[in-house]
Amino acid sequence: MEEQFVNLPTQELIENLIEEKQFDQLRQLLTNTHPADIADLLDELDPEHALVTFSLLPIEAASEVLDETGSLVRQQLVEQVDDEKLADLLDELPMDDAAEFLQDLPDTISDRLIDLMEPEEAEEVRELLRYEEETAGRLMTRDVAALRRHWTVAETLEYLRSLEDAETLHYLYVVDRNDALIGVVPLRKLILSKADATIESIMARDIVAVPVTIDQEDLADMVSRYDYYAIPIVDHQNRLLGVVTVDDVLDVIEEEVTEDIQRLGGSEPLDQPYFAVSVLQIIRKRIGWLLLLFVASTLSGEVIRLFQHELDVVVALGFFITLITGTGGNAGSQTVATIIRAITLDEVRLSNLGAAWRREVSVGLILGLVMGAVGIARALLWHTGFDVALVVALTLPIVVVWSTTVATVIPVVADRFKIDPTVISGPMIATIVDASGLLIYFLLAKMILDVI
Amino acid sequence: MEEQFVNLPTQELIENLIEEKQFDQLRQLLTNTHPADIADLLDELDPEHALVTFSLLPIEAASEVLDETGSLVRQQLVEQVDDEKLADLLDELPMDDAAEFLQDLPDTISDRLIDLMEPEEAEEVRELLRYEEETAGRLMTRDVAALRRHWTVAETLEYLRSLEDAETLHYLYVVDRNDALIGVVPLRKLILSKADATIESIMARDIVAVPVTIDQEDLADMVSRYDYYAIPIVDHQNRLLGVVTVDDVLDVIEEEVTEDIQRLGGSEPLDQPYFAVSVLQIIRKRIGWLLLLFVASTLSGEVIRLFQHELDVVVALGFFITLITGTGGNAGSQTVATIIRAITLDEVRLSNLGAAWRREVSVGLILGLVMGAVGIARALLWHTGFDVALVVALTLPIVVVWSTTVATVIPVVADRFKIDPTVISGPMIATIVDASGLLIYFLLAKMILDVI
Repeated sequence: MEEQFVNLPTQELIENLIEEKQFDQLRQLLTNTHPADIADLLDELDPEHALVTFSLLPIEAASEVLDETGSLVRQQLVEQVDDEKLADLLDELPMDDAAEFLQDLPDTISDRLIDLMEPEEAEEVRELLRYEEETAGRLMTRDVAALRRHWTVAETLEYLRSLEDAETLHYLYVVDRNDALIGVVPLRKLILSKADATIESIMARDIVAVPVTIDQEDLADMVSRYDYYAIPIVDHQNRLLGVVTVDDVLDVIEEEVTEDIQRLGGSEPLDQPYFAVSVLQIIRKRIGWLLLLFVASTLSGEVIRLFQHELDVVVALGFFITLITGTGGNAGSQTVATIIRAITLDEVRLSNLGAAWRREVSVGLILGLVMGAVGIARALLWHTGFDVALVVALTLPIVVVWSTTVATVIPVVADRFKIDPTVISGPMIATIVDASGLLIYFLLAKMILDVI
Repeated sequence: MEEQFVNLPTQELIENLIEEKQFDQLRQLLTNTHPADIADLLDELDPEHALVTFSLLPIEAASEVLDETGSLVRQQLVEQVDDEKLADLLDELPMDDAAEFLQDLPDTISDRLIDLMEPEEAEEVRELLRYEEETAGRLMTRDVAALRRHWTVAETLEYLRSLEDAETLHYLYVVDRNDALIGVVPLRKLILSKADATIESIMARDIVAVPVTIDQEDLADMVSRYDYYAIPIVDHQNRLLGVVTVDDVLDVIEEEVTEDIQRLGGSEPLDQPYFAVSVLQIIRKRIGWLLLLFVASTLSGEVIRLFQHELDVVVALGFFITLITGTGGNAGSQTVATIIRAITLDEVRLSNLGAAWRREVSVGLILGLVMGAVGIARALLWHTGFDVALVVALTLPIVVVWSTTVATVIPVVADRFKIDPTVISGPMIATIVDASGLLIYFLLAKMILDVI
């Protein structure tokens, strides 16, 4: 079956076909390629080749590619492709995807495009755009079948055949005369029931619905936690507005995970595929944190300056500076990754912070003692004398316990105050621990070595 | 609609109800709680309370809870609940979940439990366990409807009604007389077709199937990339073996993301919820990398030792040690998080490493120049003299470019050699950059300050 994984066309192949003007062959090639893969290729091609490739796509493929491609290519397409064609492509898309595309454009351009769309689609997109970004309202499909409780199975099947395209048919929702959601019938239940059974007799009444204003991340958590395929979206009067399906949620999860990982690494997340953002955008995402941490790490320089005298007298103390800051930073980085993931999965929160902290301190203490033992060995190998070895051996467990504590407490408290805990990155913990760890180190050295 | 989010029972509430022997009330409470939430509660309760709570669950809920709970609780349940009951619970589960549960147990126990299961379920579980862990074979459900091409729509509906429970009915697969997969009919297409149409006339023939041996991570990538709800699994002769659905894939994605984040933080991943692993297990996951990095960071100590003479002569050089290692580490950590995520999403690979590297170097150069400017300011504020300020200003751009390079190249090359790139963690890059960054710093100092 491995043959089913078609070899994807490479960037070079496409460039060659365009240079040699073999457009028919390229068109053929693109027909056999999934739009998601074509979108990735466009992100890698240079603007001119990307535009030619895009222009060769049939309309359905083009609209899907438009939906999946990154911001750099989108921007080019919006600039180069004429508005009529863009509006046609948007008409082809599910309206939630069209809204997502339009929201990133300047208002003047998006208004112009919406005016060029089919009246019905234009109206729907305008309604979707009234909901806030990153809420269920923006993710949902409004093409959803709504049944009435007194219908029979046969009548319902008739109704379903009359629908042009309701995106989700796995679950059929039942509403009352005010459009309020009162039940759900899984499609399989419907086809397994007798033709004259009423909807009321086969529907399930305990149905989970979410308000249209719910944050997309909370929605994604619910879907993945409870294994839903689709979840109905309602307004504050429980009226059925639409449905969010698991494939929309997968995209949200991927997006949120990408954000989390980049924040944990200490930068603002790129909200686009890697090659779809400009160098300048990458710099903008990183410079803030880097500067902040830079300024913060001058604190460690201050500590070293403060203990200049001790360093002069006991030169060997200097050899361990990076060992101590490094170990504190590494232990903190390990902890913060674990804790932040546990917060995201709602396993750790303020109410059980005590329990989490006790575990991390136990872990930190044992790890620190092992590090301390290795530290003594290293110190003695450097012939530093036993007193310096002792300082190092005592410092390491304290620094490791301290850094696991910082890495446990700060994210949980941030989460409690509605600050996204992932802004507490590994580098941030490392920087905090650098200065404080050195302070502990030099104070211990002062006590033990009795340097005046 | 916010009322629909039922308040979850707290750990304290459950403990109180058990202490006061209000079992009926607790049973009632648990009936209204989702098994996924009960499983989390069991992870937090102490063993005795967890066991009592578990024993109050009706059989379907108990089997789902057994499936969702973490390893510590599972271990207790396996020890405390008698085998007959456990086998009954396993009979209730979808067989892919039962297999997942059994694979973590010692062979003697799992064999004993399988022998106690219903013969049909036992046979199915044994077959699933023959597939390798973390492959499609372990994730798939074998309860899948298989149609024949000459059937009519009416006959097919009859057949579907006769099935006891095929987990996935969204897509109906069509096989030939050798069970080879030849087509697919979406359920909605079936109900929208005329009763006397043949399956052959309505089925789609271009169907994507994957081999049973495919790695679960690759499978998850396909499902999320192409927005599939379900994907059929076949053997090497294209015979239909089962189907993997998007909810199984969501679990895989969550598991893989958790692993990635923890590895990036510099520790081996915990493959269980946070409170479901023992302190000893956490230590075991972290100690290896911590020790390795500890030993590696003694290298920076060696560099400091090597340039002891320069440090003695120009004391101010010492103030910038942590600033330089910190900035290099932070820049590297930002880059490695971005690049590793891009590798996971297949945006960056060996073939476009050059392009990625050019971007990262441009980014690093500009970031480094900004850092250098700030570094000069800081140095002059510390009254270090212009020569030291110059050394710092020159070192920072070089170190930042160097660390972004290391953080770009190593993960891509690791990936090429089939090493999971996420083992290249932020702390690892920071440690590599620490020693080499200091070397650059001191060498520049030596040249510029002309210290002999």
